[in-house]
Amino acid sequence: MKSRSRLRVRYAETDTMGVVYHSNFLVYFEIGRTDYFRDLGFTYKELESKDVFMPVTESYCRYLYPARYDDQLEIITSFGMISRLRIRFDYEVVREPDLKLLAQGYTVHVPVNSVGAPCRIPQAYKQALSRSVE
Amino acid sequence: MKSRSRLRVRYAETDTMGVVYHSNFLVYFEIGRTDYFRDLGFTYKELESKDVFMPVTESYCRYLYPARYDDQLEIITSFGMISRLRIRFDYEVVREPDLKLLAQGYTVHVPVNSVGAPCRIPQAYKQALSRSVE
Amino acid sequence: MKSRSRLRVRYAETDTMGVVYHSNFLVYFEIGRTDYFRDLGFTYKELESKDVFMPVTESYCRYLYPARYDDQLEIITSFGMISRLRIRFDYEVVREPDLKLLAQGYTVHVPVNSVGAPCRIPQAYKQALSRSVE
Amino acid sequence: MKSRSRLRVRYAETDTMGVVYHSNFLVYFEIGRTDYFRDLGFTYKELESKDVFMPVTESYCRYLYPARYDDQLEIITSFGMISRLRIRFDYEVVREPDLKLLAQGYTVHVPVNSVGAPCRIPQAYKQALSRSVE
Repeated sequence: MKSRSRLRVRYAETDTMGVVYHSNFLVYFEIGRTDYFRDLGFTYKELESKDVFMPVTESYCRYLYPARYDDQLEIITSFGMISRLRIRFDYEVVREPDLKLLAQGYTVHVPVNSVGAPCRIPQAYKQALSRSVE
Repeated sequence: MKSRSRLRVRYAETDTMGVVYHSNFLVYFEIGRTDYFRDLGFTYKELESKDVFMPVTESYCRYLYPARYDDQLEIITSFGMISRLRIRFDYEVVREPDLKLLAQGYTVHVPVNSVGAPCRIPQAYKQALSRSVE
Repeated sequence: MKSRSRLRVRYAETDTMGVVYHSNFLVYFEIGRTDYFRDLGFTYKELESKDVFMPVTESYCRYLYPARYDDQLEIITSFGMISRLRIRFDYEVVREPDLKLLAQGYTVHVPVNSVGAPCRIPQAYKQALSRSVE
Repeated sequence: MKSRSRLRVRYAETDTMGVVYHSNFLVYFEIGRTDYFRDLGFTYKELESKDVFMPVTESYCRYLYPARYDDQLEIITSFGMISRLRIRFDYEVVREPDLKLLAQGYTVHVPVNSVGAPCRIPQAYKQALSRSVE
């Protein structure tokens, strides 16, 4: 499964070079993750309410082409279970309407509970996630 | 008492106009507040650990002159008790070295506990705050 | 005319209190302004390409009720010409689906050109803006 | 040469988990780069005034341990010339006073001019940078 999120670049996200400041792409990735969960039929917020948090333990991004204020972007998100303890999301940021690829990257996450101890993703959620990569 | 905080403008804080995006001045104000508490001999963090939070209920800012990347700024913060339930901080943002006034504003806060109910600031902290305006 | 913008709260916008950090409401206001221009049939970006910029010279916000991660919000934006040199936007931030009013505020803007000198909004745009308040 | 930058975590930088939102570490890295240039005897701002910009083309970060509001952090920055066209900075984010390593990462940059064409770093700056890695 691939999830598709649409957003418009905010003025606040740009910098003196007239382009989106690079760290905001990680925020765009987060929007992609949130929508990926929603497309699976639940929400990340719901997962947190069950004491499962998914902090980012690694992030990588290649910035290929700048995004500018008011650009309409699409975030394409896919998912991969790495191991029992680590999951990964992959992202592409594409500019509409010319479908130019602006950035691509990934994030790695380790499920933890609210005191920071590694924990398992509840079975129903894990199955939904696993099924989404088939 | 007036508290003085120094900071250098980050690239991330600027926008396409080449100046600090206006909402970041509210973040600069927060730095001023944090230092004001520290100058009084305690920390806002400590107050939160005693279940006293001070969410912003109002903010106002006049933007007089732009700040730019790498500018060295000074935030000058002063405090005023409004009532038993509301406190207020006033701020000036000055550019070094020419001491040009870039912005001025205020924030209003209502002390609440972690479930959001209005609460009193513990006596020792309140006295330190009150004394600071004399 | 009132413009309506919808957005979902990002994790990045929240803080340790578990609510949207207050300065982000000014960013939400910016989204409202951008959509207001678009609803009038042009874009703020287009205005900038004609050497007309609209920096914020004043901002005010009352924070009535917190917004949280993943909340669906609506920004309701209206416009008022103050004088030949100053314009103002008013905003309300409402939470869907219960229509709870979370925040309200305004921003004041002075049209300037790229070297920062006050300038007039081109006639066609000014008429569109004026007509929108009738 | 290693450059050392000190900063205190802002409330605005934290999220609902009570820790620094991960994308802010890229902003901390930027502070490290800015100070690295300054420690070499010039500023990145000065470089931009000579029509040399250094957009980030890649970023990577491993998040080992969370940072929290009001934590005092140190960013340790080092530099490596990759090729005639690419440079790289490496970063460590350490918490004071226990010197716990919270995050480490790197950014890759390609010098370009204001129209986005790859360009050379002016000789004097390049020599200063090269000398700093010896």
